[in-house]
Amino acid sequence: MAEELSPSEASPSRPIHSPPDSSAGGQILRFITFHSSVDEGFWWRLSSLKLDTLGLDQSPVPITGFYAPCSHAQVPNSLKLMAESLPDDLSEQSSSLQMMNLGNRNKCAVPGTLYNTNTLESFHALDRGALLRMEAKKIFDDIISGKADENSAVLSRFLLISFADLKKWTFRYWFAFPALLLEPPATLVDIQPASKVLSLEEAKSLSMACNAWRNSNMTAGVAFFIASIASDAFATIRPLKDWEALKGDGQKLFFSFYDPCNLPSNPGWPLRNFLAFICLRCNLKRIHFFCYREKRGLADLEFSLIGEALVSLPQGWRDPHCTPKAVGWEVKPKLVNLSASMDPERLAVSAADLNLKLMRWRTLPSLNTDNLSSVKCLLLGAGTLGCQVARMLMAWGVRKITLLDGGRVAMSNPVRQSLYTFEDCLNGGELKAITAARSLKSIFPAVESDGVNLAIPMPGHPVPVQEVDNILRDCEHLQRLISSHDIVFLLTDTRESRWLPTLLCANANKVAITAALGFDSYLVMRHGAGPLSSDMQNTTSCSSEKGEGEDMDTVVTQIQKLSAKNENEGQRLGCYFCNDVVAPMDSTSNRTLDQQCTVTRPGLAPIASALAVELLVGILHHPNGISAPGEISSSIIGSSERPFGILPHQIRGSLPQFSQLTLLGYSSECCTACSNAVVSEYRRRGMEFVLQAINQPSYLEDLTGLTELMNSANSFSVEWDEEADDPDAHLDD
Amino acid sequence: MAEELSPSEASPSRPIHSPPDSSAGGQILRFITFHSSVDEGFWWRLSSLKLDTLGLDQSPVPITGFYAPCSHAQVPNSLKLMAESLPDDLSEQSSSLQMMNLGNRNKCAVPGTLYNTNTLESFHALDRGALLRMEAKKIFDDIISGKADENSAVLSRFLLISFADLKKWTFRYWFAFPALLLEPPATLVDIQPASKVLSLEEAKSLSMACNAWRNSNMTAGVAFFIASIASDAFATIRPLKDWEALKGDGQKLFFSFYDPCNLPSNPGWPLRNFLAFICLRCNLKRIHFFCYREKRGLADLEFSLIGEALVSLPQGWRDPHCTPKAVGWEVKPKLVNLSASMDPERLAVSAADLNLKLMRWRTLPSLNTDNLSSVKCLLLGAGTLGCQVARMLMAWGVRKITLLDGGRVAMSNPVRQSLYTFEDCLNGGELKAITAARSLKSIFPAVESDGVNLAIPMPGHPVPVQEVDNILRDCEHLQRLISSHDIVFLLTDTRESRWLPTLLCANANKVAITAALGFDSYLVMRHGAGPLSSDMQNTTSCSSEKGEGEDMDTVVTQIQKLSAKNENEGQRLGCYFCNDVVAPMDSTSNRTLDQQCTVTRPGLAPIASALAVELLVGILHHPNGISAPGEISSSIIGSSERPFGILPHQIRGSLPQFSQLTLLGYSSECCTACSNAVVSEYRRRGMEFVLQAINQPSYLEDLTGLTELMNSANSFSVEWDEEADDPDAHLDD
Repeated sequence: MAEELSPSEASPSRPIHSPPDSSAGGQILRFITFHSSVDEGFWWRLSSLKLDTLGLDQSPVPITGFYAPCSHAQVPNSLKLMAESLPDDLSEQSSSLQMMNLGNRNKCAVPGTLYNTNTLESFHALDRGALLRMEAKKIFDDIISGKADENSAVLSRFLLISFADLKKWTFRYWFAFPALLLEPPATLVDIQPASKVLSLEEAKSLSMACNAWRNSNMTAGVAFFIASIASDAFATIRPLKDWEALKGDGQKLFFSFYDPCNLPSNPGWPLRNFLAFICLRCNLKRIHFFCYREKRGLADLEFSLIGEALVSLPQGWRDPHCTPKAVGWEVKPKLVNLSASMDPERLAVSAADLNLKLMRWRTLPSLNTDNLSSVKCLLLGAGTLGCQVARMLMAWGVRKITLLDGGRVAMSNPVRQSLYTFEDCLNGGELKAITAARSLKSIFPAVESDGVNLAIPMPGHPVPVQEVDNILRDCEHLQRLISSHDIVFLLTDTRESRWLPTLLCANANKVAITAALGFDSYLVMRHGAGPLSSDMQNTTSCSSEKGEGEDMDTVVTQIQKLSAKNENEGQRLGCYFCNDVVAPMDSTSNRTLDQQCTVTRPGLAPIASALAVELLVGILHHPNGISAPGEISSSIIGSSERPFGILPHQIRGSLPQFSQLTLLGYSSECCTACSNAVVSEYRRRGMEFVLQAINQPSYLEDLTGLTELMNSANSFSVEWDEEADDPDAHLDD
Repeated sequence: MAEELSPSEASPSRPIHSPPDSSAGGQILRFITFHSSVDEGFWWRLSSLKLDTLGLDQSPVPITGFYAPCSHAQVPNSLKLMAESLPDDLSEQSSSLQMMNLGNRNKCAVPGTLYNTNTLESFHALDRGALLRMEAKKIFDDIISGKADENSAVLSRFLLISFADLKKWTFRYWFAFPALLLEPPATLVDIQPASKVLSLEEAKSLSMACNAWRNSNMTAGVAFFIASIASDAFATIRPLKDWEALKGDGQKLFFSFYDPCNLPSNPGWPLRNFLAFICLRCNLKRIHFFCYREKRGLADLEFSLIGEALVSLPQGWRDPHCTPKAVGWEVKPKLVNLSASMDPERLAVSAADLNLKLMRWRTLPSLNTDNLSSVKCLLLGAGTLGCQVARMLMAWGVRKITLLDGGRVAMSNPVRQSLYTFEDCLNGGELKAITAARSLKSIFPAVESDGVNLAIPMPGHPVPVQEVDNILRDCEHLQRLISSHDIVFLLTDTRESRWLPTLLCANANKVAITAALGFDSYLVMRHGAGPLSSDMQNTTSCSSEKGEGEDMDTVVTQIQKLSAKNENEGQRLGCYFCNDVVAPMDSTSNRTLDQQCTVTRPGLAPIASALAVELLVGILHHPNGISAPGEISSSIIGSSERPFGILPHQIRGSLPQFSQLTLLGYSSECCTACSNAVVSEYRRRGMEFVLQAINQPSYLEDLTGLTELMNSANSFSVEWDEEADDPDAHLDD
């Protein structure tokens, strides 16, 4: 799977299969290096660790490799990295992981250190010589200190340096298996299959002892041990720390290790540091070693080797502060490209999340991607605004999107409505909501998108008797949809189609965000909390403020807040209708073609859609959510006390002036959509109330006192600017 | 093709096949009404007329219908409207059209009036009774005045009311064929095939005379005439105006007309007003009429009818100011939906243009859609910005778009880059430029989109010797592309990739528009005119200022302007590099993952892209184009002296503040991309210069004097805000 990089990328190679030649007598003992192999799972876990936890941190990470004795004459065993090689939690000691794996006979733990760099350049710039020396020094120190006596695993440390390109899913990496360099090198006196060196009884007994060692939970994963064979051919296996007790008791002692190597006359790499241990710690010069190998899970003494080597302590090793020479880098770095073997949809998910997770590294550590991916958004209208809002939501990592629209894709749509193509217009046009939801999946298969083909019932569009049942069904459908979503975007093309959703959101206390377009100006706003929802609000969103065991106090506080709320009704943020002095009514009849169609400058919709979604992200990250007060932009660009910036109530912009400003407006007691009077009446009479409002818009005006207000207002002479660019004059479809 | 509307849409029907019953003696003469048929071509021409010329104007439009004598026993002939029924130019008299068609035997002209309304409501609200009376009065007046003597066509006027829904391509229409109502109605004495009434000789002679009339260019289209048959059976055909001369000369006289009706014992509709004419003008009470019909293009006297009717002048008709009663509305309106039968691509083109054309009706009469559809745009970069800019351009009616990118679609792209889907990422990813161009066609088949797979050579990315030829080829390719386009958008993800295009645009004096993203801020700007292009500029764009025959003066003025320009170099608008004090250099190496990827708030790209295209639209509509001075937004939103608003130089916005402001910056003499020094050197040394700049960025600094500037600046202590949100710090990919 992993390919070796071309020599040009690798450093000048050093033959690591053999130690430097020596002119000393006898044959130089040659070790076969570890083979390394890395599971995809390792790279996956590393990727998440990098994205979610490490960020830009390049500190070394303790990891654990695993190997087992060789069990196949043709295939060496390799040091494997897998998902569990990486710590779950960086604060944990990796030793706990080793403990966990102690009993696994096929996963003898080898402690390692990972240096994962942030850039390819730093990967190549790492001082590999220094890293190796540092790691070798740890081995040396552990031998001297006696730590290796207790935990022999530290004799086979390894190093991994890597650069994970999580954009392309390629991983560049380079292993080192540090080996203390004996100078002069060990010389080989003899090496043969164990079965040839031992008597049949000795071999049998040793096999049994080894099998027992390998089958005990306590010792199966302990790769270094001492085999002793008494004169009666009885073999016992002893832990390494017993070396001193065993010394000179007349038994045959074999310094033994799980040998990953498969060759008939060479020991594997772990013997190198083992020899250093024996030489340093046990002060031996002539060493009998046993390379333990298996066949079908049992000791195989024909495959295992017994050898004899001569070693001498290198100069300087007597000084515990010395830095011993070491070798061990693999010849070349390797490159693995996971994207080819990955499930493409999984790849798409990771890739889509990548940009968001990267934001957290440096600029937005407080970004809550889980929140974004779990929030359910309902988009009312799948036109110019709806398509763009849906795209923006996906870009922000929102994964649950429902689009509602009652129309079909018209020929004029695709050039402005970014989820449709020419194909969707043929044969009368596909249903917009369904097509948009499908289109989202074609962009990002993991999105949970739904399309609902439904026209929103509207005040001023009276319902013929035979249609009443259908309309009521639609109203209830819409109400259920709003209940089952967290966020509602109002993106339709008429004022009056926003009325019922506004009311339903105010009733259910759902976050509602409106985007509306004029010919060359736009309005984006979030509606305030519902008038009757202070109770719900305080018990849900504000739970962090609530101390535990303060139930009674909390209730009192809530009641106080509730009454305060009612007194200060005006302090609730307004909805789209709060500034109106007329109830919504039929605005579509008798409109000329340019009033019926989306006659807006094309740049408006993407801007308003983008702002609507950025506003949502702000709400989701504000501790008070739907109840967050409206903020006004300061005059200084770039001041950012909070990472997401201010959370305005309304954003209005003008293309002719290339200007944009934030506004704040409180809820009106006369509002036809979100006032206490309207919501209460809706709660009391339900769909009957909705139907009356639809058939008779003046009913809303009477109910809210707007009629009275208008009558008093009519006594003033008001100058209307008919040419004013009112965002409500022409609306998006 | 046209369907009749349901009765609910039609007015209470009135049986127009028969006049009101009468108790007067004899059988009431019953006429068969005209059948109407409308070619698609008519609706097409009407659509363009409405969109391009009429706009909101609802004035009646003179149109011309065509019919011919019936020539098939089973099928009546109909009054046809086709494309040429509508005037080319509204100022022309429709009579010229009638003249044009005089000689066409199959297209006898009938004058009509079209009332095309702006809304469905006004369509239904039209006072059809009044319209009919008005039209009938014209017929009455033309008879009284003698105009009908000269031009008998006015006897068969018709009315058409319509509502063209150009969004859905449905046309609702209603015909009337006004007929003056004789009271009491004419009674039928006799009606028979002409061959039964006439002798064989008479019939033969009449056939020959009719065929001659029908084959003469002068008379073929004249539907009303008088046939006279002498006692020797010799028939002659005379124009209507000869009625007086023929009266009482003892010959058999037949008032004749091209009869569209196919029934064996009823005359067609034209006879109704013809009877009124005869009764009013000739003062006859007993009328012999000849319903001329054909077979295979020749008179067919077995199919043609001869009849005798009794008429009496209605009370009141003696008064020339009377308004005669009339009938003639077809029973129901009709609805035709062209979208089903239209070529879908053509439909898409019309639909895409619709929104733009509608803008001109009311809000932006100065919108130049031809300019937009012919301008050639080159987009450098097909990433988040490039995709969105391309979509915006299409929405504005731009039809020639070339995208350049050297990359492949990556898994992280589709959720942010709106021209790609998941499919495009599979198998290593499609080439971005090619895929984006194809995607544009799938949205709008008529777009002329091209994709160029090319990486832009960049300063600070030195070129290995073996790559020099390739890089030079790429540079030249880029230069050719810039030359062959009108507008260049700089939408790449690094500073340095914008350098060469900026230089090439400055050299070729092409409009260059830059969009660049920071983490939560954006910059959109247009580059100023090139430093050496005042000459080109003055002779091309400003040609409207140049008086004719003032060649010498012009040259002098230009020289003056040129030198003034050089003195005031700073007054040229700056480019993206004008504020820099370092040359562009490699910014991609050694960047961490979050610096390599698009780590920007997702809302930025759509906003910046939309503003970039709106800026282009502003430039295209400014009389000075590329040389238009930079404007700053006034503090008052909504002031709009010019329909497109101000034309700023730079727009900078911040998402955390939801704010946006316009800035103005002049060109710098030290600019590494657009200064006189750099462009002159490029002109002198061409690609050699480019290569040197790429390999050695400090060369640019030396050339422009930046090095010197920096040295002097270094003597000051400068405080750098390292955390500043510089739009150049992280850039879009």
